[in-house]
Amino acid sequence: MTEEVMIGRLNHVAIAVPDLQAAAAQYANTLGAKVGAPQDEPDHGVTVVFIELPNTKIELLYPLGGNSPIRGFLEKNPSGGIHHMCFEVEDILAARDRLRAEGARVLGDGEPKTGAHGKPVLFLHPKDFNGCLIELEQV
Amino acid sequence: MTEEVMIGRLNHVAIAVPDLQAAAAQYANTLGAKVGAPQDEPDHGVTVVFIELPNTKIELLYPLGGNSPIRGFLEKNPSGGIHHMCFEVEDILAARDRLRAEGARVLGDGEPKTGAHGKPVLFLHPKDFNGCLIELEQV
Repeated sequence: MTEEVMIGRLNHVAIAVPDLQAAAAQYANTLGAKVGAPQDEPDHGVTVVFIELPNTKIELLYPLGGNSPIRGFLEKNPSGGIHHMCFEVEDILAARDRLRAEGARVLGDGEPKTGAHGKPVLFLHPKDFNGCLIELEQV
Repeated sequence: MTEEVMIGRLNHVAIAVPDLQAAAAQYANTLGAKVGAPQDEPDHGVTVVFIELPNTKIELLYPLGGNSPIRGFLEKNPSGGIHHMCFEVEDILAARDRLRAEGARVLGDGEPKTGAHGKPVLFLHPKDFNGCLIELEQV
C-alpha cells in the first residue's frame, strides 16, 4: 500500500437518460445550467450532452446504435440513473498497475482505450468500488 | 421557463457503502485520494467520510442509528452505490419556487432543512431527474 496521490479532479459524472432532449431542457431550464448541443459519438455508442458546471461536468448519455454500452443500463433503470463517474489521473498505466497490485479489477483487457474526450481511459469493476462504475482518464 | 443560471458547483457526490472502513481505506490506498476521519452525524443518521478531490468532494455514507435514511438504499444495493449528488445554489427558496413552477417535486414539506454541512438543503424527487436524487445546498 502506498499513500501517494493518484486520482485527481472529478472530470465528470455521467447520467444515462431515457429522453435526451427532455433531460437537456430540464438541466437548462428547470435547474438553470449551461447545456451544450447533443454530440453523436458513434465509436462509443452514445449521444452526449455536456453540462458545464463551474468546477466539473455532467454528461447526459443516450444510446446510439444497436450495441450501445448503456442500453442494458437503461433497460434495468428505465428512469435513468448515474452510470459512472470519471476521475483524472496523470499516468493511466501506472494507475492500472497500482490498482491491479491492490487486487482491483480493471475492465476489458486492461489496455487503455481512447475515451469520448480523445484521451486514454480505463474502467474499473463496480463490484470492487462500492457498486460504482469508475472511469479513469489520463489528462 | 427562464435561462437564468441557478445551479452552481457540484458540491459533492455521496456514495452509500456497506463497509465504511474498507471503502475509506480503498480511496486512500488503492485510488490514492485525500481521505478524512469518519464523522458521526446523528441528526442525519449517517457516519460520513469526506474525500477531498482538487475540485469537489466524495462523501462516503454509512448508516448510523435505526432510522438511517440510507439503510433502505443499502438493502436494495448491498454492494453500495451512488446515493445522491449535491449542487450549490445561491438562494434555496428561489430555487425551490422555480423548481415547483417548472413542475418538479421537492421532497418533504419543501422547507429547507439544515444539511450535513450546517447549511440549508432540499432534495428533489429522483423520478423527476432521470433517476438521480439531487440535493441542493445554499452556500
